[in-house]
Amino acid sequence: MANTAKDKWVYDFGAGKTDGSAEMRNLLGGKGANLAEMASLDLPVPPGFTITTEVCTHYYGHEHSYPESLKTQVETSLKRLEKEVGATFGDAKNPLLVSVRSGARVSMPGMMDTVLNLGLNDDTVKGLEEQSGDTRFAWDSYRRFIQMYGDVVLGVDHHKFETIIDAHKAIKNISEDVDVTAEGWKSIVASYKELVENEIGRAFPMDPHEQLWGAISAVFESWDLLRARRYRRINDIPDDWGTAVNVQTMVFGNMGEDCATGVCFTRDPSNGEKFFYGEFLINAQGEDVVAGIRTPQQLTIRLREKEGNTLPSMEEAMPKAFKELCDVREKLEAHYREMQDIEFTVQKGTLYMLQTRSGKRTAAAALKIAIDMVEEGLISKDEAVMRVDPGVLDQLLHPMIDPKAAKTSIGKGLPASPGAAYGRICFNADDTERWAEEGKSVILVRIETSPEDIHGMHAAKAILTTRGGMTSHAAVVARGMGRACVAGAADLFVDYAEKTLKAGNEILKEGDYITVDGSSGHVYKGRVDMVEPDLSGDFDTLMEWADKVRRLGVRTNAETVTDIKAALEFGASGIGLARTEHMFFDAERIQNVREMIFAANEDERRKALDKLLPAQRADFSKMFALMQGMPVTVRLLDPPLHEFLPHGSGDIAAFAKAAGLSPDVVEIRLTLLKEANPMLGHRGCRLGISYPEIYEMQARAIFEGALAAGGNIYPEIMVPLVMIDKELEKLKAVIDDTAEKVFEEQGKRVDYMVGTMIELPRAAVTADEIAAHAEFFSFGTNDLTQTTMGLSRDDSGMFLPKYVEDGVLPQDPFVSLDQSGVGALMEIAAEKGRKARKGIKLGICGEHGGDPASIDFCERLQLDYVSCSPYRVPIARLAAAQAALRYKRKNKVVSLQSA
Amino acid sequence: MANTAKDKWVYDFGAGKTDGSAEMRNLLGGKGANLAEMASLDLPVPPGFTITTEVCTHYYGHEHSYPESLKTQVETSLKRLEKEVGATFGDAKNPLLVSVRSGARVSMPGMMDTVLNLGLNDDTVKGLEEQSGDTRFAWDSYRRFIQMYGDVVLGVDHHKFETIIDAHKAIKNISEDVDVTAEGWKSIVASYKELVENEIGRAFPMDPHEQLWGAISAVFESWDLLRARRYRRINDIPDDWGTAVNVQTMVFGNMGEDCATGVCFTRDPSNGEKFFYGEFLINAQGEDVVAGIRTPQQLTIRLREKEGNTLPSMEEAMPKAFKELCDVREKLEAHYREMQDIEFTVQKGTLYMLQTRSGKRTAAAALKIAIDMVEEGLISKDEAVMRVDPGVLDQLLHPMIDPKAAKTSIGKGLPASPGAAYGRICFNADDTERWAEEGKSVILVRIETSPEDIHGMHAAKAILTTRGGMTSHAAVVARGMGRACVAGAADLFVDYAEKTLKAGNEILKEGDYITVDGSSGHVYKGRVDMVEPDLSGDFDTLMEWADKVRRLGVRTNAETVTDIKAALEFGASGIGLARTEHMFFDAERIQNVREMIFAANEDERRKALDKLLPAQRADFSKMFALMQGMPVTVRLLDPPLHEFLPHGSGDIAAFAKAAGLSPDVVEIRLTLLKEANPMLGHRGCRLGISYPEIYEMQARAIFEGALAAGGNIYPEIMVPLVMIDKELEKLKAVIDDTAEKVFEEQGKRVDYMVGTMIELPRAAVTADEIAAHAEFFSFGTNDLTQTTMGLSRDDSGMFLPKYVEDGVLPQDPFVSLDQSGVGALMEIAAEKGRKARKGIKLGICGEHGGDPASIDFCERLQLDYVSCSPYRVPIARLAAAQAALRYKRKNKVVSLQSA
Repeated sequence: MANTAKDKWVYDFGAGKTDGSAEMRNLLGGKGANLAEMASLDLPVPPGFTITTEVCTHYYGHEHSYPESLKTQVETSLKRLEKEVGATFGDAKNPLLVSVRSGARVSMPGMMDTVLNLGLNDDTVKGLEEQSGDTRFAWDSYRRFIQMYGDVVLGVDHHKFETIIDAHKAIKNISEDVDVTAEGWKSIVASYKELVENEIGRAFPMDPHEQLWGAISAVFESWDLLRARRYRRINDIPDDWGTAVNVQTMVFGNMGEDCATGVCFTRDPSNGEKFFYGEFLINAQGEDVVAGIRTPQQLTIRLREKEGNTLPSMEEAMPKAFKELCDVREKLEAHYREMQDIEFTVQKGTLYMLQTRSGKRTAAAALKIAIDMVEEGLISKDEAVMRVDPGVLDQLLHPMIDPKAAKTSIGKGLPASPGAAYGRICFNADDTERWAEEGKSVILVRIETSPEDIHGMHAAKAILTTRGGMTSHAAVVARGMGRACVAGAADLFVDYAEKTLKAGNEILKEGDYITVDGSSGHVYKGRVDMVEPDLSGDFDTLMEWADKVRRLGVRTNAETVTDIKAALEFGASGIGLARTEHMFFDAERIQNVREMIFAANEDERRKALDKLLPAQRADFSKMFALMQGMPVTVRLLDPPLHEFLPHGSGDIAAFAKAAGLSPDVVEIRLTLLKEANPMLGHRGCRLGISYPEIYEMQARAIFEGALAAGGNIYPEIMVPLVMIDKELEKLKAVIDDTAEKVFEEQGKRVDYMVGTMIELPRAAVTADEIAAHAEFFSFGTNDLTQTTMGLSRDDSGMFLPKYVEDGVLPQDPFVSLDQSGVGALMEIAAEKGRKARKGIKLGICGEHGGDPASIDFCERLQLDYVSCSPYRVPIARLAAAQAALRYKRKNKVVSLQSA
Repeated sequence: MANTAKDKWVYDFGAGKTDGSAEMRNLLGGKGANLAEMASLDLPVPPGFTITTEVCTHYYGHEHSYPESLKTQVETSLKRLEKEVGATFGDAKNPLLVSVRSGARVSMPGMMDTVLNLGLNDDTVKGLEEQSGDTRFAWDSYRRFIQMYGDVVLGVDHHKFETIIDAHKAIKNISEDVDVTAEGWKSIVASYKELVENEIGRAFPMDPHEQLWGAISAVFESWDLLRARRYRRINDIPDDWGTAVNVQTMVFGNMGEDCATGVCFTRDPSNGEKFFYGEFLINAQGEDVVAGIRTPQQLTIRLREKEGNTLPSMEEAMPKAFKELCDVREKLEAHYREMQDIEFTVQKGTLYMLQTRSGKRTAAAALKIAIDMVEEGLISKDEAVMRVDPGVLDQLLHPMIDPKAAKTSIGKGLPASPGAAYGRICFNADDTERWAEEGKSVILVRIETSPEDIHGMHAAKAILTTRGGMTSHAAVVARGMGRACVAGAADLFVDYAEKTLKAGNEILKEGDYITVDGSSGHVYKGRVDMVEPDLSGDFDTLMEWADKVRRLGVRTNAETVTDIKAALEFGASGIGLARTEHMFFDAERIQNVREMIFAANEDERRKALDKLLPAQRADFSKMFALMQGMPVTVRLLDPPLHEFLPHGSGDIAAFAKAAGLSPDVVEIRLTLLKEANPMLGHRGCRLGISYPEIYEMQARAIFEGALAAGGNIYPEIMVPLVMIDKELEKLKAVIDDTAEKVFEEQGKRVDYMVGTMIELPRAAVTADEIAAHAEFFSFGTNDLTQTTMGLSRDDSGMFLPKYVEDGVLPQDPFVSLDQSGVGALMEIAAEKGRKARKGIKLGICGEHGGDPASIDFCERLQLDYVSCSPYRVPIARLAAAQAALRYKRKNKVVSLQSA
């Protein structure tokens, strides 16, 4: 690590003296660190200095005041700057002008404030006029400064400045800024100054030092703006990181036709091709490129030809500067070993580098660049694995909205299951299925979904709900099926009776088209164009490298043939959670399930179970046949029985008739089974304790199914919702007894394990006692999150989003594991479990099994595997590899330190 | 501790050699230990030996087989016995006869088996005939032996033996056993032997050794009988304690008119008076006293006169033996320093002691005896405090069913709130209130109660529900009010439409009388006589002694003036939980509460809150005025808002009209507020985060109320359901800001604290972070139990009773704290809380705060206080004192050991 003095608040950069380096990103921010790094690489960086992020922390920790020695240090650096550039701050002849920019550890584009041309006032503008020999340029620069400073530092609404320009143009009967003359800008400057004085009650500051401190404070203040806080929340950036402030000598791309400014990527960010990619504008300042007022020109001839641009490329217009820029490109890639996003300015033919940073890229580009760089010898395979954000793999696996397509958003919910789809609105599962059979594309729109909607969800192209969170029924099932889903779109209103979907004043009817983007959470009106996914060879290559380094097994949560096949294609090496109850909802079986529930006694119940046995056995047999040689964790019946019961008088009557019961009896029984808090009710292994014959039937179906499938079958039978060791002890006996019976009947055996989910806090803190009867634990982090935090996933939509937005919770705990709460209990359970049973197998099968941050935590706990929905398997494989590499590195550091 | 050899399975007692002592209760069982102790006191104990409880453990651990050396040891002891008594086992002239009795650590009356007169057979019966000189006696003894042995050891239904006697009596035309002649018994013995042979397929065993081992095995087997297992479950006796077996020389109280048998108490077990109390029968065996066939005679003249008994007392009939018995009484009380329950036999004028043990007594007697014994110098005040079971204090505080009254039980539920009452059945709260105003005694009968029933519960004499557990709404509120309550009487069926209460074939109508016993859970038909409570001076004395030794503070959960006054009378030293929402249900306020909930925005909400403020302030002011100088913990709004909303179309319409809303809007809003799992929903401090203005109003009401009450007011403001530190940080700021505003407005201040409930597992494991913002923690063990165990208290009635009965859970965790699960989290929280904030105040305010076992746990955690409903305050005071003494003693032992 670089040496940092305790009271050093300011770091210089530039040819003369560079204190910082790229490694000091935490202290100098991304921009500052990279400017220092470029300066030490002898790249042409306009000199300047960086005020550290620690000053920001101090600022917010001390009632918006600065460390004592800051002022002196800034003055010293300013003097150095004046000396190096040969210009003086506030000098009327040869003024030093600077930019003041924010720069946090990670880029927060557009979130925070910048002031350019600082140092200009009524005197120095004349010096600029003289130095540049261009009166119009000088006064244009001055008005830009007043406008920016007025907006950012003094809080004058920027529309008011624009109104003044508009008024001027109207009077002069001109339409473009380029048509404003030098005199025009002068008169606008006068109006600007008047505006500011009227708005803030005092004159625009003429003292460059006052200007500088105003700008510095404004940058620090902008760290706390609502938009910045929101951005950080969304991107998981801690509030206490703070921003640095970079003060840098101005260079001008707008001083004439031998000047230019541009942004470029060292490779194509869209597809990753090794190809210099960028745009520039002659005689323009940086903001003009971003603002999009003028059509930018291409960097290279090749790009110009490809885009059919008639304006000359930089390669043609400024060959010398272009050559220099190409050299810089090579130097930077060789140095950073990463695709760079570069900003540059050419001032009177001289190239200046203003910024370099890792370039953002599409998922496909990320893959290609990482793999190419390994081939180029720039990075290792491990580094390539670390380079690709697992989250973006989703882009490669699902259709996505065409970024170029026009679209009208009518609402936004949670991005519950990735992918996008359009189709006709349908409000119930039966019609959805029927329409789909007729060949229509259908979007199933429900307030919430329930297990009875499964067939409709399967038939739909996508699912939209207006209630529920990331682990609501709709979200979980949709992810499992690989269907796109937006959940909990609270600003949309479903009216089942009128069959309408209301979005503000917009009323959509059943049959109308909508487009649902499960990756962003957006809901659009009508049909929006899609881009189909394309899994390239790069994907396989990277996955292969990832698999070589990962330690965690990656299994899937699946029970249908379709899902299992998908998961195997995506590289799952086992099933971590097969939910037997999903098999109960089939139309032919549900009647038997309900008769089982309505049985008056054990005998009747056994009769109903006997009817269910063949179907369950067949399901298991199919599942095992697909999973030869791999472990399959089967969870015994988990949900409360009332979930299987008929709703509505029609259904009730139909069921009563078929079962030979009176509808009244059925109604009474339904009332008795109703629960105040079904999540905490008569479910999980409590059903097995109350009715051991249910688990006995399921165990029999598993063993008979396994024997029927033949070959290498490894069933792991999982007892859900265990709260105390005795439950598992009793139910393990039921399973073991059944196994022995089946093995004896058939004269052959299979190896199997019996284990439990750890999904209640009590199970976690008494894991040692439970481990006496469990050969494996699987962390059911959905329910463990609900109980640990006392948070119903179905109801949390009412307040959880605000919790995350206000920073009360760092993230939605159903999306990314709450490591300090739920994770603490997992740690206790893992430790106690291992202590009581050496080598106990530990896995996770909650939704978190597919979340990279949670997978990292699982690696730290040294779990044996994670299990996730089929479409998240590749993400989990990559995240597991990255976690293994991080853990290895950390351990290496630890062992070095302790050596 | 006494020295116990590893392989010593048999312990002798008797004048010749006594190995055991009273301290060895765990090894020898209660009976065996006391026989040994009496023997070493030189009391006339028939000699014998005890087979230890470890043999029982071995027996069940080794497939019902015995330790190798047991046989030899039993034979050795038998030889010793023969020598001491001068009789020989199986000797036809002078046979040794023994009794074989069970004896566990604690008495399990009637649960396990006994065999008397063992050693008799066709030969030895003649020896007995000769020795006693009484043929009829000898053959009566023999038939008793065959009958008992046949039943207990050989499994022959005892009714069949009785049928033989009945047949004999019918033939001989006699009606009483005493009229059966010697010859009669002989012929009955012959029939008995024939019966046994027919039933078991072999002859009744004649070998006394075979008889002995048969009886020993039968006693061990009886440990595992269903009735014994159930008894242990109910009385919290672990299965692995096992029973000992006592083999003792027979003495006969039925050998003639100079023989007798009796049971007595060293003091009156009904009122505790120091007065020798007991009954005896001349010429009878022990079982005859218990069987109640003959009217027993009184022990003393005084007792005979009091009872108006015409038969002579023992004092008169057997003055010598009586004198000896009085000596024994004094010796035993001086030795055991405790009221004893004694069994004795007089054989031909000689007194034998068969048993002594602590005598069961009423609550009043327990108090009086403990206090008298202190005055007599027998025990210390601390011992007196330890002597009284806190649970029985309930008997002293509530009316109880007259034990002598005739009654017909129609059902049984949970004993949810102690006390008994009779009244007319009423099915709704409004009518209950009206009837009560008309002077009727009313029992409110509901399927479940809700906050809207509060006024009816208050007006009722008792509450009966057919659903819900020990912490259901009905149970909690009833305990708080001191109303008797039976909850979850599942075999009763309420039909609101028909206004009937069905119990099997019995149909009771509205207005019919029932009697509810909240101490036992029984519901009786009609009016059953009551006994009113009477708090004697003994109660105050014991409480005073308890208060001197207890370390834990005892507060109360109360918010109404009535409850607070009751709690103060019972000795509460603060309020540990004032539930502000109970104040919201008042008819005048509920409209404002509902308008607050229906407010469209913060402004409207503030307007509604402004209307609530004066009422809340007045409530707090009254509460604080009563609680001068004592801490008052006020919990801010906790339940989900939908609990306050109108139900049913009538109520909805009324509310809508009053609020100026359309009923449709109200209906829609109601639907939106509905939650799948309200327990885990939008409640507790989540409401404060969503609508800080609610907590702001409440804080203002507290501070203004405190200032208005004047004097020494110590509000402790408690934020409920905190899951993460940030919640508390934010809400503490709201409270502190409000405090400063109020203090400034009024120019005066009060000291206050801000703290939180620890009622979520996440709060427990992150207690260090939360403690940064909390000045106190109060363990909300109701909700902590629900979340830790994933157990909804409202729904657990469906399976929890079976869990407890089957031994899956050791007890109902809502009644007595689940120490290894919930307790483990409390321990983590206490430790982390104290680490982060030295001296943080810790309390408990869940229902467990009034449960002695849970209070003991709180003492072990060194909490500062417990808080419970007013009527449990005395119980908590005594339990806290006992816990302190236990903890002190344990610490002493530890420090002695480590010294």
